[in-house]
Amino acid sequence: MSQQNYYKANLRDLSFLLFEQFHLQELLGKAPYVDWDKDQVETVLEEAYGWSQKYLGTLNSSGDAEGCKLVDGKVTTPAGFKEAWKALFDAGWRTLAVDEKHGGQAGPFTLAMMVEEMLCGANTSFNMYAALTQGAAEVIGAFGTEDQQTRYIGKMFDGTWAGTMCLTEPHAGSDVGSSASTAVKRPDGTYNIKGTKIYISGGDQDLTANIIHLVLARTPDAPAGTKGLSLFIVPKRKLDGTSNDVACAGLEHKMGIKGSATAQLVFGEDDNCVGELVGTTEQRGMSQMFHLMNYARIGVGIQSLGIASSAYLNALEYAKERKQGSSIKQWKDATAPRVPIIEHPDVRRMLLDMKAKVEGLRALCMKLTMHLDRAHALVGATDADAKTQTEYHNGQVDLLVPLVKAYGSDQAFQICATAIQVFGGAGFLRDWPVEQYCRDSKIFSIYEGTNHIQAMDLVGRKLMQRGGANVAAFGKDVGTFVAANKTHATLAPEVATLAQAMEAMTGIGGTFMQWFGGGKIEMVPTVANRFLEMMSETVIGWLLLDAAVIADAAAAKLPDGHADKAFYAGKVFAAQFYARNVLPGVQAKAQLIGKNDRSALDMPEGAFAPA
Amino acid sequence: MSQQNYYKANLRDLSFLLFEQFHLQELLGKAPYVDWDKDQVETVLEEAYGWSQKYLGTLNSSGDAEGCKLVDGKVTTPAGFKEAWKALFDAGWRTLAVDEKHGGQAGPFTLAMMVEEMLCGANTSFNMYAALTQGAAEVIGAFGTEDQQTRYIGKMFDGTWAGTMCLTEPHAGSDVGSSASTAVKRPDGTYNIKGTKIYISGGDQDLTANIIHLVLARTPDAPAGTKGLSLFIVPKRKLDGTSNDVACAGLEHKMGIKGSATAQLVFGEDDNCVGELVGTTEQRGMSQMFHLMNYARIGVGIQSLGIASSAYLNALEYAKERKQGSSIKQWKDATAPRVPIIEHPDVRRMLLDMKAKVEGLRALCMKLTMHLDRAHALVGATDADAKTQTEYHNGQVDLLVPLVKAYGSDQAFQICATAIQVFGGAGFLRDWPVEQYCRDSKIFSIYEGTNHIQAMDLVGRKLMQRGGANVAAFGKDVGTFVAANKTHATLAPEVATLAQAMEAMTGIGGTFMQWFGGGKIEMVPTVANRFLEMMSETVIGWLLLDAAVIADAAAAKLPDGHADKAFYAGKVFAAQFYARNVLPGVQAKAQLIGKNDRSALDMPEGAFAPA
Repeated sequence: MSQQNYYKANLRDLSFLLFEQFHLQELLGKAPYVDWDKDQVETVLEEAYGWSQKYLGTLNSSGDAEGCKLVDGKVTTPAGFKEAWKALFDAGWRTLAVDEKHGGQAGPFTLAMMVEEMLCGANTSFNMYAALTQGAAEVIGAFGTEDQQTRYIGKMFDGTWAGTMCLTEPHAGSDVGSSASTAVKRPDGTYNIKGTKIYISGGDQDLTANIIHLVLARTPDAPAGTKGLSLFIVPKRKLDGTSNDVACAGLEHKMGIKGSATAQLVFGEDDNCVGELVGTTEQRGMSQMFHLMNYARIGVGIQSLGIASSAYLNALEYAKERKQGSSIKQWKDATAPRVPIIEHPDVRRMLLDMKAKVEGLRALCMKLTMHLDRAHALVGATDADAKTQTEYHNGQVDLLVPLVKAYGSDQAFQICATAIQVFGGAGFLRDWPVEQYCRDSKIFSIYEGTNHIQAMDLVGRKLMQRGGANVAAFGKDVGTFVAANKTHATLAPEVATLAQAMEAMTGIGGTFMQWFGGGKIEMVPTVANRFLEMMSETVIGWLLLDAAVIADAAAAKLPDGHADKAFYAGKVFAAQFYARNVLPGVQAKAQLIGKNDRSALDMPEGAFAPA
Repeated sequence: MSQQNYYKANLRDLSFLLFEQFHLQELLGKAPYVDWDKDQVETVLEEAYGWSQKYLGTLNSSGDAEGCKLVDGKVTTPAGFKEAWKALFDAGWRTLAVDEKHGGQAGPFTLAMMVEEMLCGANTSFNMYAALTQGAAEVIGAFGTEDQQTRYIGKMFDGTWAGTMCLTEPHAGSDVGSSASTAVKRPDGTYNIKGTKIYISGGDQDLTANIIHLVLARTPDAPAGTKGLSLFIVPKRKLDGTSNDVACAGLEHKMGIKGSATAQLVFGEDDNCVGELVGTTEQRGMSQMFHLMNYARIGVGIQSLGIASSAYLNALEYAKERKQGSSIKQWKDATAPRVPIIEHPDVRRMLLDMKAKVEGLRALCMKLTMHLDRAHALVGATDADAKTQTEYHNGQVDLLVPLVKAYGSDQAFQICATAIQVFGGAGFLRDWPVEQYCRDSKIFSIYEGTNHIQAMDLVGRKLMQRGGANVAAFGKDVGTFVAANKTHATLAPEVATLAQAMEAMTGIGGTFMQWFGGGKIEMVPTVANRFLEMMSETVIGWLLLDAAVIADAAAAKLPDGHADKAFYAGKVFAAQFYARNVLPGVQAKAQLIGKNDRSALDMPEGAFAPA
């Protein structure tokens, strides 16, 4: 069990994105971020990085090896998690963007998410307990009564209690609407909760005195499907300290995130489980849960980013240090000196591929969070322009959430696999962090809505939101960039590739309209994932090129030998690599969709394999 | 620890490939396969399948959970492995294609490899001990003296002793030529062996009374690099039963194949390790090892196939049984009946994608092994045509080995990841086999020469072998198929896509020639992997379409309701799916290569990330 820290972040890239590309400073020093300035943001990032390495990075491998245990109905988390939990809340990293009325620092959500990248990257398993606690607290903050907020939120934000979200049931999985848990109102206004929930992250643990479960259940006579569901606050222990008939029936044994206790919970086995309705109105459970779910999906994108980024940076360090083989230019000379493997073209290709994708994912995530912060900064403004701007920003958030979740998680797994390949045989060993990163990251494509659910959310809902205004605004943003840079001295060919990608993507949007309108709805899911990739690659291509244009100009102003020269050059190379090796795939995928392949739909079930 | 068998094979597909597509029967009943007929082959496959499920499938998950242990210098393998080892050699599965003079059944190599698919698929970790033993025995058989053959081979083929291949050293990795192990001749003609080898599969175990290591080492004054290496037989215990100063210094803790003991071996710590030269001439070690290595690379392709195939078939079964969600045609009705998830278009898409790729890999592997068997059948023939044919078949084997190894292993990992996605959350759990399949398969892209080494072997060596005659013959074979089927009633559009892929691939071959000739050799490794994919996808597209043409004709002759109708339909659908969704990628990749992207080469090292 290694207690060594392997977590690595790239603070320079965070700073570049925040202040050179996305201009967070425009929002600082005024409402709602009155007390924040650029120096403070940079200081938080630096300190959070050091903290994450020291307190969480050191527990990542050992937590994986030890895992969680269920003995006599009680769950224990890996050694060190309890101490780290206390240190986390003492440090205040979980409340950076939380309202002051709940004890938070009311900072930009973007900053909180960049700190989240580090917490997740350093120890995904550990951070899940805390992230879900925060999510649950925010649901109660958004929809709970004043009284509920008073009783629950403070102790959740300060880490005294934890929180969970309980959606999935054994028979239901992604089909949340078929939930069979029940909630029957008692004379005192509380509810009798009964049901079994599975895959509950942090469903039980030994970190906190109590766990506040948010449970989806159906009241008597409520309609079938998701719209009949209500959301309940179900504490593990009643607030008077007595047991609340919530039992942990088992822990899952998993491929990864082994430090995170994934529990099966039985509510009301003895008919004695009491819950209270979130707020005062039944049958709002799904929309309330979706408030949390939306943030949870962004959180999965951030988890993906955190792990992928550390995987890349570990592979990079290994490639610089590990000497093996001679330069390809001396391949015929057996006595040529051994060189660090970063000098081998294929290793460089893998590293640049990872760099471009990691930094592209980070830009995608920050594009989304900056829209959230800009919308937040407009809260309270009443003029027409503010309303238009708010709709624009919120619309972009809606559009980008499925991309961040699904493309982020798919890419993270691939990036971790590439990191293993850079390490070679060593990458397959538990001595190095990358095999764990790969195992941990596989779940990201599944939980909080599978990546296909994300793709259907994008194609079936998001593209048509506000009559297509969100996607039109996105297209306009990309078009503005293309128009401004199509004759760029360094990047014009790559900008042209972006324009082609955008055109191809728009064309497929039209194909979907025809399918929806023409009774071919079953064609949509066969290519929805592919379209989500197309759109994600277009966004990332755009944001990487935007960064390259900025970096190219910034580098030109620096004297030779300045430390930032190489950094800016890296941004330009990453954009060029992506535009030459990934972005053309958008057009290629559009051509595949154009083939209208029905083979997966038309194939008889018996043809998959003989029974 | 589950003792349940999850291994699944598709015997109907094996039979189709063997007898309907590749016509193994043409070789049976005459030399060198005099004693074999079609019924026997089918019987072996059926029995090997049942045996693999019963003896190996039941130990796969438990072997993974238990792993190997090193206590007091002794390695123990997981429970049940010893009994399975004995049963394996009793059953004779390891000697199907071994010469009769070594106690084998002298059957077709193709049959042995299809049985290998099942042994690997059922329990990759276990089978590695046996496969490497066989490989080592075959090296001694091919290059050892008569005396060495007499002393070693019989006991290796009957499982009394095991064998290993010891190439890798801590500092060297893929760079075998920098091996530092030494071999100094003693007065009696044996050698004093000294050195440390790592990543030795089956380097120590408790299955056999002795282990015959094949060790690459350098004699005094031998030249640097691979050409100075000699190969030595170094038994763990001398044949008189005394210790031979071979110590197991450690076992690796790995992401997967945990039932396979991956050992660090120290030879001659006490200056008392005795080896004998394989054969009688020094400095032939690398070519001797490559004899084994070539088969080992084919073996990795077969491992990949075995795991990927079982991953697909397990996902298929789960998708047929697991009910969740309603039909997309009733998506607005919350009370619509739940359906098996195989009815959901995206699940069907994933399954058909896996099916096409698995069956394509199997066809690729069998194409290679049939070339080997056809060459073997010509041994001894002296006419000019036989010589030409032998060169042709051996040339195709050379060309296909890197594809089988690298494309097979890359695809296997992806297919296993897709299988996890079909299972959803359940796929991430150790309750089901697919997460282990995914972990086990990751090493396939690394060992026996990383996949980039395979790509460089293809591009830098194989394409130019025999003055390009091998690749020309391959092109001619594809061309013949295209010409014969370009107006096929069902498959003409897909055949046209194949022709385009072949043209694109050929074009990139020309690009390589220009780079090699024009001093741009460093460009080659930046796209070698991509070219290997292009060629692999072209071969697989061709073989799937060839199968579809055969299946289409066969189905037409069957009465409605015949059990094979659905099977043949599946072959046609798989080919169509592949030709519409994967094969067009060959052209797309050629276009990427055409961009002559130098970004990975030109990027300064400091630009990857700030230090």
